[in-house]
Amino acid sequence: MLNETMMALGKTRSVIRDIFEYGNKRKAEIGAENVFDFSLGNPSVPAPACVNEAIRDLLAEKPDIYLHGYTSAQGDAGTRGAIADDLNRRFGTNFRADNLYMTCGAAASLRITLGAVICQGEEVLTPAPFFPEYRVFAESAGAVFNPVLCDKDTLQLDLDAFRAAIGPKTKAIILNSPNNPSGVVYTTESIKKLADLLREKEKEYGTVIYLIADEPYRELVFDSSLEVPYLTKYYADTIVCYSFSKSLSLPGERIGYVLVPDEAASAGDVYAGICGAGRALGYVCAPSLLQHVIERCVGQVSDLEAYRKNRDLLYGALTEYGYSCVHPDGAFYLFVKALEEDAGAFCEKAKEQELLLVPSDSFGMPGYVRISYCVSEEQIRRSLPAFRALAESYRA
Amino acid sequence: MLNETMMALGKTRSVIRDIFEYGNKRKAEIGAENVFDFSLGNPSVPAPACVNEAIRDLLAEKPDIYLHGYTSAQGDAGTRGAIADDLNRRFGTNFRADNLYMTCGAAASLRITLGAVICQGEEVLTPAPFFPEYRVFAESAGAVFNPVLCDKDTLQLDLDAFRAAIGPKTKAIILNSPNNPSGVVYTTESIKKLADLLREKEKEYGTVIYLIADEPYRELVFDSSLEVPYLTKYYADTIVCYSFSKSLSLPGERIGYVLVPDEAASAGDVYAGICGAGRALGYVCAPSLLQHVIERCVGQVSDLEAYRKNRDLLYGALTEYGYSCVHPDGAFYLFVKALEEDAGAFCEKAKEQELLLVPSDSFGMPGYVRISYCVSEEQIRRSLPAFRALAESYRA
Repeated sequence: MLNETMMALGKTRSVIRDIFEYGNKRKAEIGAENVFDFSLGNPSVPAPACVNEAIRDLLAEKPDIYLHGYTSAQGDAGTRGAIADDLNRRFGTNFRADNLYMTCGAAASLRITLGAVICQGEEVLTPAPFFPEYRVFAESAGAVFNPVLCDKDTLQLDLDAFRAAIGPKTKAIILNSPNNPSGVVYTTESIKKLADLLREKEKEYGTVIYLIADEPYRELVFDSSLEVPYLTKYYADTIVCYSFSKSLSLPGERIGYVLVPDEAASAGDVYAGICGAGRALGYVCAPSLLQHVIERCVGQVSDLEAYRKNRDLLYGALTEYGYSCVHPDGAFYLFVKALEEDAGAFCEKAKEQELLLVPSDSFGMPGYVRISYCVSEEQIRRSLPAFRALAESYRA
Repeated sequence: MLNETMMALGKTRSVIRDIFEYGNKRKAEIGAENVFDFSLGNPSVPAPACVNEAIRDLLAEKPDIYLHGYTSAQGDAGTRGAIADDLNRRFGTNFRADNLYMTCGAAASLRITLGAVICQGEEVLTPAPFFPEYRVFAESAGAVFNPVLCDKDTLQLDLDAFRAAIGPKTKAIILNSPNNPSGVVYTTESIKKLADLLREKEKEYGTVIYLIADEPYRELVFDSSLEVPYLTKYYADTIVCYSFSKSLSLPGERIGYVLVPDEAASAGDVYAGICGAGRALGYVCAPSLLQHVIERCVGQVSDLEAYRKNRDLLYGALTEYGYSCVHPDGAFYLFVKALEEDAGAFCEKAKEQELLLVPSDSFGMPGYVRISYCVSEEQIRRSLPAFRALAESYRA
């Protein structure tokens, strides 16, 4: 009688949420300091100072109707111009305000973009492991969603697997680098090869295949010499979906954008479709005060050093204890091989040590656990004996 | 190749936007003070002082991770509790935080609610005249959208027309009171009759028909003795969609809620479907800072006196000049009979007097114009000779 699909989606709490709720219960029982919750990807460092300064200054300087009034549906022109300038400065690109459409965060960016490009029954691919909501967004937009497994040793793109997977119905590929849940940054070489493959397949099928770059973790990279390739420079039919949730530690504020470069196939129509999908999905404009904050803070980044220290501490200890894990270059996740085949059973055993980890099944690559290290350094230090004991319990 | 529906939606600028753009061009030509733009429904009074005070206080008192971090998908529990308390105080209801789901404004509330209750091909009705985006939201949710004309003399509900229109496929009726574009408040008597009719039809067809109350203008009523009936008290299967855009003059901030009363049919499943639809449409949570502001400001209202003065001034003058118009009790619109059959032609003639009015065709009731009086009092005073000259030009 009601919409069964939506009801089922609302009732299935994600695995991650379930673990988080268990953690809250357990903390009440034995004390918060004795439960080591690594389940949620919620930034643990504050926003850079410029954010709250910008809010205070805007309140002092600007009239309410500017601060809290509607912007155009595509977003405030000044904000979009500031973002274009920042991208051009950093990546040597040549974007204008009109290439950008402001959104309520990366989830909105992805869902709106898929709404614009997908016709019923077309296919969306993504490398696995992947963020589980991709499936929800793709299917809600009428697409068939198919993950393509990464190389098991490196968690880098498996180009042969992509070659086998791409067909005439393939309309879009979502690429998330640095990756949630693996922390891996796809190499420039692999991006070049993927771009070559996509151009070849576009020609073979006479289709357009959009590369949708989901980039909330772009700035969360811990080695300044490491290049995270900017995809529009390697492949024309790229659409960038961005969020300031992680770079400015503003996940609750829901502020991000979609970027459609002029070079993308049917760029004007794609942009119109994005405006139309935003309208049809009930997005009127991105939150206005935060748009004005972004105009003043774009290019700033939260304190990455805290995340880097956490990564080094946890990665160093876990590998010492005998866990195997690809070295993560960015985001704030470790993707660790479970010590038995069934990652769910491994997570249950971890709970005996009060360690809350997320089994990798819903990320599309069974046999691993995701460890979110956007927590206090103290929590990591206190958890290390538990990780050691867990490893030892498998050697006994 | 792309999604044609979304592309078309993005390319069709609304009539209202077209007039607004024309106005900007014309203002550049002859001076802003000589163009009388009554096209947009953008609040012209500032937010009540508590809003910016709450923002400043929150920044001073609370850590960033509380202010800018994720809330749960249904919204901050404190905010939802404060809203429930305010409603219970004002309407003698008995809601709890868990009846509420925070959204990015009324458009999101409506689109998410329709996503939860509509199965492909079911029907959504609304009294005409109506806000044109209802059609977009209903069709995007897979519904067939059918307007039901109001009584031509009073612009009140035509119960006979509803009786004829409701069928076994009717799943929801969107009711917007005070109404955009007519300013009419539907009487308590007509709400009681509609509720009786809906119960009768539910029984006749063995179906559930949800009444979706779209209430952004609830507080914008200019006669304190006038009751705007709270629909959950008259009809159990009511879902309330609310926005703080007009009551707190925050249209750009995108903050509102959906309320599902316990008494509504399958209330738990409807609420789950709303959580699911919010997720599928890419809404993660409502903007966090604004949620916390609402917790502190719920129950406050912007300066209504400015709107009331505008209404009295404009309604008084226009009826004196010979225009006919139902007396509007709320919102900030006059719905005036065009002085010729074709409202579009009448609006073109109004442009000769530099008056920018919106023809009523897209509101589902041809032959009228909408006049948004959320403008400065000075603009109204300066425009009066133009309205007089326009009326006289039809008598010549």
